[in-house]
Formats: sequence, C-alpha cells, structure tokens
Amino acid sequence: MTVKLALIGAGRIANVHADAIAVRRDAALVAVADALPEAAAALAARTGAKAATIDEIATDAAIDGVLVCTPTDTHADLIEKFARAGKHVFCEKPVDLEITRAQEVVDIAHEAGVKLMLGFNRRYDPGFAAARKAITDGKIGKVEMVTITSRDPGAPDMSYAARSGGIFRDMTIHDLDMARFLLGEEPAFVSAHAAVLVKPELSEIGDYDSVTVILQTATGKQAVITNSRRATYGYDQRIEVHGELGVVDVTNHLENNLRIGLADGYQTAPLMNFFMTRYLPSYAGEIVEFISCISEDRAPATTGMDGVIALRIANACLASVETGQRIAL
Amino acid sequence: MTVKLALIGAGRIANVHADAIAVRRDAALVAVADALPEAAAALAARTGAKAATIDEIATDAAIDGVLVCTPTDTHADLIEKFARAGKHVFCEKPVDLEITRAQEVVDIAHEAGVKLMLGFNRRYDPGFAAARKAITDGKIGKVEMVTITSRDPGAPDMSYAARSGGIFRDMTIHDLDMARFLLGEEPAFVSAHAAVLVKPELSEIGDYDSVTVILQTATGKQAVITNSRRATYGYDQRIEVHGELGVVDVTNHLENNLRIGLADGYQTAPLMNFFMTRYLPSYAGEIVEFISCISEDRAPATTGMDGVIALRIANACLASVETGQRIAL
Amino acid sequence: MTVKLALIGAGRIANVHADAIAVRRDAALVAVADALPEAAAALAARTGAKAATIDEIATDAAIDGVLVCTPTDTHADLIEKFARAGKHVFCEKPVDLEITRAQEVVDIAHEAGVKLMLGFNRRYDPGFAAARKAITDGKIGKVEMVTITSRDPGAPDMSYAARSGGIFRDMTIHDLDMARFLLGEEPAFVSAHAAVLVKPELSEIGDYDSVTVILQTATGKQAVITNSRRATYGYDQRIEVHGELGVVDVTNHLENNLRIGLADGYQTAPLMNFFMTRYLPSYAGEIVEFISCISEDRAPATTGMDGVIALRIANACLASVETGQRIAL
Amino acid sequence: MTVKLALIGAGRIANVHADAIAVRRDAALVAVADALPEAAAALAARTGAKAATIDEIATDAAIDGVLVCTPTDTHADLIEKFARAGKHVFCEKPVDLEITRAQEVVDIAHEAGVKLMLGFNRRYDPGFAAARKAITDGKIGKVEMVTITSRDPGAPDMSYAARSGGIFRDMTIHDLDMARFLLGEEPAFVSAHAAVLVKPELSEIGDYDSVTVILQTATGKQAVITNSRRATYGYDQRIEVHGELGVVDVTNHLENNLRIGLADGYQTAPLMNFFMTRYLPSYAGEIVEFISCISEDRAPATTGMDGVIALRIANACLASVETGQRIAL
Repeated sequence: MTVKLALIGAGRIANVHADAIAVRRDAALVAVADALPEAAAALAARTGAKAATIDEIATDAAIDGVLVCTPTDTHADLIEKFARAGKHVFCEKPVDLEITRAQEVVDIAHEAGVKLMLGFNRRYDPGFAAARKAITDGKIGKVEMVTITSRDPGAPDMSYAARSGGIFRDMTIHDLDMARFLLGEEPAFVSAHAAVLVKPELSEIGDYDSVTVILQTATGKQAVITNSRRATYGYDQRIEVHGELGVVDVTNHLENNLRIGLADGYQTAPLMNFFMTRYLPSYAGEIVEFISCISEDRAPATTGMDGVIALRIANACLASVETGQRIAL
Repeated sequence: MTVKLALIGAGRIANVHADAIAVRRDAALVAVADALPEAAAALAARTGAKAATIDEIATDAAIDGVLVCTPTDTHADLIEKFARAGKHVFCEKPVDLEITRAQEVVDIAHEAGVKLMLGFNRRYDPGFAAARKAITDGKIGKVEMVTITSRDPGAPDMSYAARSGGIFRDMTIHDLDMARFLLGEEPAFVSAHAAVLVKPELSEIGDYDSVTVILQTATGKQAVITNSRRATYGYDQRIEVHGELGVVDVTNHLENNLRIGLADGYQTAPLMNFFMTRYLPSYAGEIVEFISCISEDRAPATTGMDGVIALRIANACLASVETGQRIAL
Repeated sequence: MTVKLALIGAGRIANVHADAIAVRRDAALVAVADALPEAAAALAARTGAKAATIDEIATDAAIDGVLVCTPTDTHADLIEKFARAGKHVFCEKPVDLEITRAQEVVDIAHEAGVKLMLGFNRRYDPGFAAARKAITDGKIGKVEMVTITSRDPGAPDMSYAARSGGIFRDMTIHDLDMARFLLGEEPAFVSAHAAVLVKPELSEIGDYDSVTVILQTATGKQAVITNSRRATYGYDQRIEVHGELGVVDVTNHLENNLRIGLADGYQTAPLMNFFMTRYLPSYAGEIVEFISCISEDRAPATTGMDGVIALRIANACLASVETGQRIAL
Repeated sequence: MTVKLALIGAGRIANVHADAIAVRRDAALVAVADALPEAAAALAARTGAKAATIDEIATDAAIDGVLVCTPTDTHADLIEKFARAGKHVFCEKPVDLEITRAQEVVDIAHEAGVKLMLGFNRRYDPGFAAARKAITDGKIGKVEMVTITSRDPGAPDMSYAARSGGIFRDMTIHDLDMARFLLGEEPAFVSAHAAVLVKPELSEIGDYDSVTVILQTATGKQAVITNSRRATYGYDQRIEVHGELGVVDVTNHLENNLRIGLADGYQTAPLMNFFMTRYLPSYAGEIVEFISCISEDRAPATTGMDGVIALRIANACLASVETGQRIAL
C-alpha cells in the first residue's frame, strides 16, 4: 500500500518532512497547503505534489493522512477539522496550550476513529530509541534514576517566547515526555525550580530560561531534568538511565570526528547546534512511524494523549515553582 | 620547617594518611594512638612513628597537629581536647551529627587559635580542583547550573547505616559541599526527593538510598544532585558546571585504559569501585593542604565551618523530603 | 546555472549518486543508461530522469556531465567516449588497472578539454576534510608522520577478488591517495609487507588480505598504512597526522551514541559496518564537487591523474612485497 | 620471606624504585651504593637503608638481589660482578649496546644460577598487561596486526643521544619488545624507514628522530611501530592489536579528567608528559615482579635474553634503513 499524505504548512519543518517522505517507497506526498500560496506552490513544485487548499485536502478521498505543520494556535482547529473529515493526523507538538482544548480534540479524533500522532520526535532518535530498547530488554534491570540534560544553543526571540506558553510548556515538555518514555511509569510528584539567568527580558513576561525539575513515580523512581536556554557549545541533548543492574546513557552529537592535540590539550568539534540537524534522523523516524501506523492500522507510538499528559506535568512544574510545593500529579 | 603530626586512630583511612605523610619532605609522622594498642603499634612500626596515648599526644609540645581518624561519635570531643591543648586539628567529616555540638567545637577551635580542617577530600581531587580553577579563571563565565552525580558501588551494612545519620548527612553531604565549591555562592533554597529502591531494610530505620536534590542560590543559580547507594558499574563520581560561556565536566575514573572491540561493540573497563582508590590523590591532597596551612599559618581550604554549613543543608534536604516543601536556608 | 547530468550504470552506487543529485538545487539528473534496460528504467522512474542509451547521452547537447558507475573494465572506454563527445566525466575509481591505459584516457580527457574527476570519495568525508583543513591552516605545523588504519568488515568473494587487481590496487589505493592528501608531498619510497591471514583462498590467486605499507617523501615524512580484509567490529577507518606542533586524528563512526555500563565495564555500539553508510556524506560531497567544478569551470579536487599516481604507488607496494626491497617511486 | 635488596645507583629512577620497595611488606631496601657518596647517603637516609660500596654489597650475604640503576656503559660489568657474587640482578635496559657482550653476561648469569631481570617496564603497565591478558584469554582470537605508537615529548640532548646507541637501540627497543609481547611470536623479517625531522643535529651523529618499522612473523602476522622524538601534546604511548575476532587497544593517559566545552569545541587535558609519571604503575609492577621471582624462585617475566633479542631486532632495523632491504632475523 502507498500511503497518500498532505502537508498543512510549507515552512521549514514541512520541508524536512517532505524530504523524509520522498525517500520512502511506501508513501507519497500528494498535496501541500499553506496560508502563503507561494510557499505551498514552491514546495509542491520541488516534490511533485500539488498545491491545494485546506478544504480541498479535507475532501480529497484519495488522501489518507495529513501532517499539521502550522503555528501552534491553529493546531487544535486543524486536528478537529481533519479528524472530522476522516483523515489521520500527524501534528507537531503541542496539540494546544490549554489542557481542556487539547483533551477535547484528542477525544474528537478518538470518536472519529482516526489516528492522532503527536510529533514528540525525540522518541524516534536512534540513540534514545536504542536506550529504551536496552531498558525494555532488561539490560539494566529495574529503572531507578533518570537524568535528562537539555540545553538550547540560544534563547528564542521575545515574540516567539511570548506565544510559546513559557519554557515548561515549550521546551521542558519534550523532556517530560522523554522522562515518561524512559521511566516506564507515570510521574506522581514533581518539584521544580526556575530562574532567569540568560535573557533578562524573559522576566518581564513571567517566563524563565534556566530550570530544574525532579519527577518521582509512585514507586519512588526519580527523574531529574535540567534545562537552559543557552549553551555556547551547541545543542546539548543527553539522557542517562540508572538501574538495578547498570546504566545506559546517550551522549551528544559532535559536528565531526576530528580531534586536535596541542600542547595545551586535545580539542574536538563543538556539538551540532541546530535542532533540525541534530534530530534529523528522529524527524525521519517519526514520519516512518506515521506511515506505518496507517498502513498497519495500529496506534502510533506517540499520541495526542501523550501531549495532554506532558502538558499537565508542565503546568505542575510551573505551579511548583510558584508555590514552593511538591505537586501531586 | 618540618610539621610534626600525630594520627588519632590507626584504621584504614589512617594508614592512607600515613602513606601520604611518608612521601613528604616537609612533614613527619611522630606518633599514633588507637583504642586498640596493637593497631597503633603496627602502624607505628611500619612508619617509624611511636605508639602513644591520646593524652601523651595532647601534651607533647613537639607535635604541631593531629589527624582525627576515629569513629564519628568521638570527633567532637577529640577536636575539643586537642584544640584546648593547642594542636591544629584535621578531622574526617563530620564534626558531629548535631549542628549545635558541631558549631560549638568550631567555636572552641577558633577561640583556641588553632586550625580546624575538615576532610572534605573531594575538593582536593585533581580533576575537581582543575574544574574549580577553570571556573575561577573565568573559562565558562558566570556559573549557572551545576550537576553532581554520585553513586556508591553498594549500600552500607545496616549497622553502619544506623549510626550514619542517614544518607543526606552521610553521603549527600559530600555533594552538598561540592555544590557550594562549584556554585561559588551559598544555596538559599533546597528541594529534595528520596526513596528506598536498593535496600528495603533502610525503610525500617527511616533512611533512603536513592535521592535527588535541587539547590538554588539567591541569584537563581541551580545545582542538581543525584545519589544512589548502588551502582553495579563502579563508584560513579561526576560533576558538570554549565556557565554563560561554556561548560566544564569531570568524568569518571576507569580501572584501566583497555578497550575491546568485538562484533557487538566496544567494551571498556568498569569504574574504579572503591572510594580509597578513586580518591587516593585527593586524600594525598588534603594532607598537603593540612601541612601547608600549618607551615604557612593560614586557614585551610576546608574548615569546620564548611562542615557545619553542609550539615545544615543536609538537614534541610531531609525536611524537604518530609514536608514536600521547598526549604529556605 | 543548473548542471545537467547523466548516470551511466543504475546499480547501487548510481542510486546513491542519484539521491545526492536530487537534493541539489544547482543540478538535475536528466538521463540514465544501463546494460540492463529495466535497471535504467527503474532508476529513471524513481528520479524523474529518462532512460537512455549511452549513445543518446553522448550526443545529447543538453547534458553537461556523466557519472560512470559501471564495472571497472568498462571505465577507460567510457571515459574516452564521453570525453571525445565533450562531456565532463566523473568516474568511480580506478580509471583502469593498467597504468598505460589509465594515463592514455587521462590525456584524452585533457586534450578534449573536459574535466575528468575520479571518485576518491574519502577526500570529501567531513572529518578527513576537516583534518586536511586543520593541517593547511597550520594547526599542527609541518606534517611529519601519517597513520592510516583501514579495515574492511569482511573479505570480498573470490569472483570480485579475481577481477579487483589485488588488495593494493583495489583497497590500499584509497589509503595511498589519502596519504598523498595528508602528507602534502609526493611519496618517494615505499616498503610493504603482505600476508594471507583471513581468507586462505586468496593465496591461490596470488592476492593478500593483510598488508602494511610505509611511504616516505623526499624530505623524510613518513606514512604508515595498515589494511585488513576483516574487522569483526565494523568498518574501521581512521587517520592520524602528527606534526611539529601537534596531532590531528579522525576517529571511527559508531552505529549510535548509546553506552551501557554494567559490572564488567562499559559497552558502546560497534562501528558502522557498511561503506555506503559510513561514507554517505563523502559520496554526497564528491557529487557537490563535480557539480561545482563544472559550474565554476575549474579543476576537480580529485582528478584522473590522482588515480594514475595512486595506481603507480600500488604497483610499487606489490613490487616491494615481492622483492623485499624499498622501492623508489 | 622478606627479600632484601640493594640499589646500585641513587639517581632519579633509583628513587622511584626505592618508593616502590617501601610500600611492600615482602621486601626491604637494605643498602644503596652510588659513585657519588652524597647521593647514596641521601637516599639511604630517606629510606632507612645504609649507604655502602659496591664491594660491600656484593659480599653481604644478607642481600638477595640488586637493582642496577647506573649509566648504560656500566651495566654489563655490574651484572657480571653481582651474578658471580650470587646475587639476583634487576637491570635497567639495555644489558649492553653490543650484542656479544650482552649475550655474554646473560650466559654468565645463567651459569651462576641467578636471575637476571631486564627493566622492560612497559610489560608491567596495567593497561598493556590487561591487553596481553585479553589476548591470551582468547578475546580477539588469533592475533593478526599490531600497531604501536610511541612518541617522546621531546628529543634528548646531544650528549645523551651520542651515548644512547641511536633511536632504534634507545627508544624503539621498548616497542620492539612490546611487539614481541603482543604478537606472541618472534618477528622473522623487518623493514624500517628513518629520517631527521625534529632535531637536525642528530644527522651529524648519524642518528634519526622519526622512524617507522614493520615487523612480520613467519606466519604472516605484522606489527607496525611509529616513533617520533617530539610530541607537543605529551608522552604518546598507545598499542592496538587486531585479531580474528576483534581488536584491543590501550589509549593514552591524560593529565586529568577535566573537559571544557566552549563555542569552538571541547577541550581535554594534554597527555601526561613525563615517562616516570605515565609509567609509574609499571615501575612499581616490575619491582613486584623482581621480588616475586626471587621469593617464588622462578624466572622473571622479562629476562636478559629479552634484551638481547630486542637489541638484535633494533640492529636489523638500522640495517634495513641503511640498505633499503627487508632484513631476515
């Protein structure tokens, strides 16, 4: 079966997804829509798809699924529209910044009988996925402590930050999902600290740039997350899982494998410093998953509900910072 | 000047200190006391020192300083005795498990005009000291986030655990001191989580074996500590400091530098798994510091007061676990 | 300018080149020829190019350059044909196993005024290219000693081996070119040793599977190459250049960044074990170079003459093995 | 049994050996001789041994063995003297720069029934010994290719170089012994190249500073050695053994475990750059071996004969450089 897909949005990440579809033999990109018709036309020309409107895509019986790559505040409405039109939906995170609305469209997709896959792309990173596999294969026994280090190369501009929902809902949310993925149990309690150390303007909108989080499950397993909005040395993305029988970790990706030894020591390349380069294989991996879950008629590995749960924990982190309390989830 | 030293205690760590003194040209071990006269005699014979009683050492005008290497519950009384006798004192941590008593003997040493150095040996580890130097040299700019990972190879036996004061006062306290060393500012708030995941009997005495801590300074700098009482892969001791201009980390010590590549991947040695082997250079370093602070008549880098402060934070960690509150220090 | 290209051959490496052309905005694949028309048709269909005959491509005025991806024994004739037809030619190594014929077609291409680029892909590997750049930037001063380790995951089958020209002309030749690239001077002398340690049948055809080579330039710089036709741990590809001021090395590529620590040590993934995976970026890089040298009308970084020189050194290696002499080049 | 030892020579390496003896419970240093009586007296005072003459040591029935740590040109005569006096002898390499004289004293020691241990200390390095053990344990199957990289931090001064016997007999000889240790078979052929790239004055005395060697055994196993008399990045000492089932390597020793990540990449410490620091554990290990082979009355792991064989190969290296021939051993 060839899964027929449409892209809603023709921006940067849409282009990444288009490339990932192009190398597949089991899928084809057939249509592209964008608020800017020129953008849709350019991506369509490059890929052999046709430019179309959202309505045309929703009513095209030949289209199996859509990938929603538009601004966050349009996600929920688009998911709702396409779910009601019977299309499977892949959506970049988040479903919505409001829990109730996010839950609502998750329910709508469920009732419509379509798949709603959320783009928690990191679960598809080959290293992180290999770590998860090592854990479920029993290599380190019972999981006890998870450590997630996640630092962006630089802080977002203020216009992005203002619409982002704040660091916990925008950035930490990826790590909260990763913690759930690696703990293998739901967090039951959370404590969080936060400060503005990088970009003072963030204080003015009540946001933070440097945060630390402890999650604890009902059985006592703990996960620690540290986030910063600035790492001069690149895009710092590491995980470590300590268990009864051992430890697994996944280290960073350097720009290349060159090392120079001089009188003052050895020097290696810095980290890859752009999320699309660092996580390129994971973006390809999530597209493979979306295609496969349609052709195999099964649930995707990351669902809209995963987005709702991660959002709920993100909100609890913020509450912990504001109240000085450990928050029960 | 040759600094003349006496050892109070002739056990395992006392022997380590005796070896560290033996290779120095600026110090000599002249006397050894121990509750077991045979132990004192054996160590004396091996080193050319004389076996003596505590009182003989206290009243021997030729002795400049003593190293207290006896059980924890004797520390405060011995510090008091030797301080009043005008001897400089090096003492293994802690001064005392009770803050008031610890503060009291710190004050007594101060009034007696003797140096009271506390054995927070890790500050003298060549790697950790190099990290601190890189920070104070401005290599990474302003410090923002500290991450300390500290895992013992195995849990202590129950008789030790019962007298230890609990994981925060016994084990985490080293990391609390390290956090202060690396943050360069005093922590102002602490949140901690704790569980029993390794050794169920610890529950019976109200202790824990798996803990996570967040410290935050008044300016918003954060430190995260993760501790476990069991690491199958060895004695896991790492630090990382993230700053405005970069990051420094100090990695673990492997048993050797051998690597084997086979069809299923590359294998290296496990970590050194005994604290006296892993930290041998740091034990030597603290002895150098004690000798130097006497011969140069200056304060030691780690004082009794550092012990009091770390103990206060350890108590706050426990309070946070018990109350679910962020505790102000 | 859009450079218009044709593929001669539609096999495995031709497909890799087709993908590399597809992501470029400055080039287009317009035609594919293959001795098996179905193969040409399949690749043409997948890429939007047309299937064509060799003659059609040679006479198509719209085509700027061809990529020769056919069996070795057809290379020289195809280069000659397309050079005479005025097409720029990219050819997989070698030009020909016979020096005189190889030189002849290099001369023909030169006289025809077309570019003849040889597929010494490793020069375009991002790590090796970064090493070369570090050297030419003066980071390690004058180059003194080069060490190249190159081991295949497994020995070729006997039918391939019989047609390959032997290990020096088939496998070592890549390392001989890399040595020239890194030394920055021509080798003047060579000594080589060789044995059959992996695949005994190779003895029957006078070939080897385990060889070591020393190259020395007129100024005394030395390069050492070690080759084996079997490495259980993957495709082992490393370089190191020692100079007056320091050293550069480029390490291997692991399959992923996962590490597992257990009681007996730490384990990482094995090496990538397929040359097309390991060197994928270098294959893309050589296509970029071919396109650029056409659009910029300049010589390619690796020419047919580089192939002739490397072949001459490979022949000298074999002579050294057979005579026990250091051979002057 | 307590093995009673005397040091002949009281210089730098003698002091290292004295420290290694001091921490043993199964041995005691009882006497020290040196051409400079003050040097002997100082070392004796520091260790509790007595200063003595060579004759006094040779005739002291209480002394089991001597450690010869004097200049190279005195080794053979001292070995002969002490062997005839019935003392076991540990001698720094080489026995003598002349094969015939070296063989002669090996024979004398043999006839006298005393042990003659040669200080090829690297065999006792924990990493190299672990590599050898992995090989003999069958971890990598049949050994095929050995790679030894050995570079000194800096060139020797000319007065040392003039007496050293040249780079092959002075420096490469350690690697020739290591190659024998790792190959597990005797080399049968050798090819070598050499040049002066570091210190031009060496040309004047017919010596070299940059050499490469290939050794081949009768079964075709190959070892490659690269040596340089200057490495700005420290004392570069690595081995690698490739076999049928895998590969083992032993990496360098860094000065510490600190790493700094900045915008231009990650930096680690340089290599330990002094042979006595890098190889300190191996010096201790050879002393343990000498004590043990006396107390257990067995042959030492490195004998005078190992010195003779390595010297013979070193001479063959030089002959290969001079004649351009592969030399049969």
